[in-house]
Amino acid sequence: MLGADALVKTLADCGVTLCLGNPGTSEMHLVAALDREPRVRPVLCLFEGVATGAADGYARIAGKPAMTLLHLGPGFLNGGAYLHDARRAFSPVINVVGDHATTHAHLDAPLASDVEGLVKPLAGWLDAARTSAESGPKAAAAYAGSLGPPGCNAFLLLPADAAWSEGGETSKPQAAPARRAPSDVDAVANAVRAAKKPAVLLNGDALYAEHLEHAARLQAAGVVVFLDTFATRQSRGAGRFAPMRLPYFAEQALAALEGVDLLVTAGTKHPVAFFAYPGKPGELTPENAKRMSLGGPEISSAAAVAALADALDAPRQGFALAAPFAPEAPKGALSPETIATSLARHMPEGAIVADDSVTAGMSLYPMTAGAAQHDWLFHTGGAIGQGMPMAVGAALAAQEMKSDRRVLALCGDGAAAYTLQALWTAAREKLDITFVVFANKAYRILLVELFRTGAGNPGPASNAMLTLSNPTMEWTHLAQGFGVPAMRCETAEDFDRRFARAIAQPGPMLIEAIV
Amino acid sequence: MLGADALVKTLADCGVTLCLGNPGTSEMHLVAALDREPRVRPVLCLFEGVATGAADGYARIAGKPAMTLLHLGPGFLNGGAYLHDARRAFSPVINVVGDHATTHAHLDAPLASDVEGLVKPLAGWLDAARTSAESGPKAAAAYAGSLGPPGCNAFLLLPADAAWSEGGETSKPQAAPARRAPSDVDAVANAVRAAKKPAVLLNGDALYAEHLEHAARLQAAGVVVFLDTFATRQSRGAGRFAPMRLPYFAEQALAALEGVDLLVTAGTKHPVAFFAYPGKPGELTPENAKRMSLGGPEISSAAAVAALADALDAPRQGFALAAPFAPEAPKGALSPETIATSLARHMPEGAIVADDSVTAGMSLYPMTAGAAQHDWLFHTGGAIGQGMPMAVGAALAAQEMKSDRRVLALCGDGAAAYTLQALWTAAREKLDITFVVFANKAYRILLVELFRTGAGNPGPASNAMLTLSNPTMEWTHLAQGFGVPAMRCETAEDFDRRFARAIAQPGPMLIEAIV
Repeated sequence: MLGADALVKTLADCGVTLCLGNPGTSEMHLVAALDREPRVRPVLCLFEGVATGAADGYARIAGKPAMTLLHLGPGFLNGGAYLHDARRAFSPVINVVGDHATTHAHLDAPLASDVEGLVKPLAGWLDAARTSAESGPKAAAAYAGSLGPPGCNAFLLLPADAAWSEGGETSKPQAAPARRAPSDVDAVANAVRAAKKPAVLLNGDALYAEHLEHAARLQAAGVVVFLDTFATRQSRGAGRFAPMRLPYFAEQALAALEGVDLLVTAGTKHPVAFFAYPGKPGELTPENAKRMSLGGPEISSAAAVAALADALDAPRQGFALAAPFAPEAPKGALSPETIATSLARHMPEGAIVADDSVTAGMSLYPMTAGAAQHDWLFHTGGAIGQGMPMAVGAALAAQEMKSDRRVLALCGDGAAAYTLQALWTAAREKLDITFVVFANKAYRILLVELFRTGAGNPGPASNAMLTLSNPTMEWTHLAQGFGVPAMRCETAEDFDRRFARAIAQPGPMLIEAIV
Repeated sequence: MLGADALVKTLADCGVTLCLGNPGTSEMHLVAALDREPRVRPVLCLFEGVATGAADGYARIAGKPAMTLLHLGPGFLNGGAYLHDARRAFSPVINVVGDHATTHAHLDAPLASDVEGLVKPLAGWLDAARTSAESGPKAAAAYAGSLGPPGCNAFLLLPADAAWSEGGETSKPQAAPARRAPSDVDAVANAVRAAKKPAVLLNGDALYAEHLEHAARLQAAGVVVFLDTFATRQSRGAGRFAPMRLPYFAEQALAALEGVDLLVTAGTKHPVAFFAYPGKPGELTPENAKRMSLGGPEISSAAAVAALADALDAPRQGFALAAPFAPEAPKGALSPETIATSLARHMPEGAIVADDSVTAGMSLYPMTAGAAQHDWLFHTGGAIGQGMPMAVGAALAAQEMKSDRRVLALCGDGAAAYTLQALWTAAREKLDITFVVFANKAYRILLVELFRTGAGNPGPASNAMLTLSNPTMEWTHLAQGFGVPAMRCETAEDFDRRFARAIAQPGPMLIEAIV
């Protein structure tokens, strides 16, 4: 068989069921191979950043990698920002990057670039299948490689002639690599017993619904449980244990950690400020606190927390769980707070929230702690614009799992403008996504940061660089342009009513919230 | 002064007058420095690919670099595809990439990445200003570095603390680097005299209005003059010498070069196929032809061609120039051909064409050879989506030069969907751009290439990956959403009338051409 078929069939044998891509001439045989492999669903994205962001969102819900199909260096570059975010989410993604035929490489044709050099900084696994015979075995290796641990971006470069030549053979799936066991559980347990105010900071599967009980046990044993500011996925809502999210702004994070004399990490590392500020510390662990680690993202934090809870003989009941919170319908002017209230009221059971709401969203997370149970996907790597693509990927995973989980994409207008092409894929694939765009007409976070960094008050250039009015983006037009029905809300009552209706309808819908 | 001010003022002293960007927290002091430097115009882009594509278009018209302002690794990645195209256009661009403070780098915060590693493959010049004292001198070096020769992407990495610290000083502009003189002029002249069918292949300034006469002299001396399929800029239109554009498809290029027994290059290299195809040659120079070069993009091809014309004692008059072509108004169904006819009829004198029209545009170029005089900007690197950003940059250059040149952005719908955020900047900056989107609802070129590569007939997966219907993009909505007035044309008469009106109005306008 052709190398392209060996690659696609091997990935399908490994369990890959989704290909997100935007192919070009050098990937034509891969596209044709997808025609011959019905187990892999092809989903076109109008811009590669949608494909990669969706692959991240898909992995966070499906728990397995999708493949992306990218066209040489420029295809990778267009998708690179959200592979950065995926890397910070430890999401497994298999990026198949087409390249010129090996016989063509030395000619330095217009599209040629150093693909290997470009992808390397984002790669957890990287190889090229330079012949059709290599494409099967390297596909199997890429699948295993994407799983890490921790999950990572695997890049498999495929020259066009390796794809189009005969001599390919499928390769057997490799066993999934084992996760490392947690370290130093007994020593940590001893330190916890000795500490006045012990705390743990979590990321990873300890935050998933089926494992939250272990963290609740720690809290019941007197350990303060935090989660990373931008964790990968957190199951939350009424009746679930709710660790405390470490605040974004460094001074608030320092305040939250005040008095902690032991900070243990599991599935993550010790916390640092998102950005540096003149004269402010970058490390957030209190200076006098002892630092210990059960392991980073390469372990199962759920297993680590369970082991620690057992070692501490922590209680098995009597946990403090999030109380249901069903506020009254909000009234008056629309604001992030009234939107948060509507979310708390109408969160669909089992919803998946893709959060790219930046400043507008600061009240969304706390206000929904007691809403119906849902999963929250965080913006892990700071490359804004991830929200809409991540929602697309999560919804594709939900569709594949035949669950009827509703996805909520919560996006600042500045963020949404990066990747609005995701709307088209949502319409095409009939995805159950409610997009909420917070139209505050500024990179509001940067107006805050201009002040916080001490750069000064905004002058004409700063205003030109940080505000989004003149012209105002009209999100109802933009959504309709990509085939997604849309409406615009200017009052709290209006939003509350329309949001409730939108989430009950199949398919995508966008609400522009004027805040 | 602060390092940020030293950088910005030094670039302004060098002659930089435009900053295209999308900043983040780590660039706040750079933004504030722009407030204090009125010589540099700040232009916000909603997506970094617009900033970089515009920097390319600006350089091609203004003949000097703009600075871009990019936010760490993700900001670079989002802009990377069009820096690839800029690299292939030999456009000078100064990319200032903000990074975490040096004190913050080791903390591996969420946005941290190996910025240097990421940018390296696209860099012609690369350095970091790690202290405020370095920022002035390295800015001056980056300016000179961007000029090459040939022009290139200069990357100046700027950690936040180098920007916000005192101790910066402006640095004197460096002398622009000299271009290398053409090589082997006499030997080439001798070879031309000895050849039966000598030809030259050109790119660079030999194609600019003020230098076209030299190439015309060569043609008058019996040398067939070609230009690269995707040259940087070509001045053309009625009354100008029109070299022959090397066709895109390899078999057509081979036919065009048939019988050539000497192929001399100036400002470029010997031609290669854009892509490899099974069993077809990658090199397009006829096998038995002698190859010679006056120099690559590092020389002035105008100077080289002038020297060769002198060495050949080529005629100084009697050139074959493009005849005016003013066809009748087209009628009936709208098609790429009728649009090309309307372009030929109404091309505004001095227009700048940014061509990203892919298959739809194949008739645009030949049909406008005899239109009013204009400059054509080609899609040099194959990263589609460059058209709208390139048009924005060209229009910013025209505005700065106080010329009233109209810019025409000719874009396939698939290409335009990559970077439609450019429309917002066009509206905000009141740019005189007429955007024409060819709505053929497919990656038409790939349906051609699927066949040409021998991958087969499209099945369901290929159709899913290569067609853009379901849903149909509504470009009038999309344009209006970004503040650009738009209209939709379905007949040749309608397009002809509305296009004539659109190009006469100030500010941007979009026409969706249903083809």
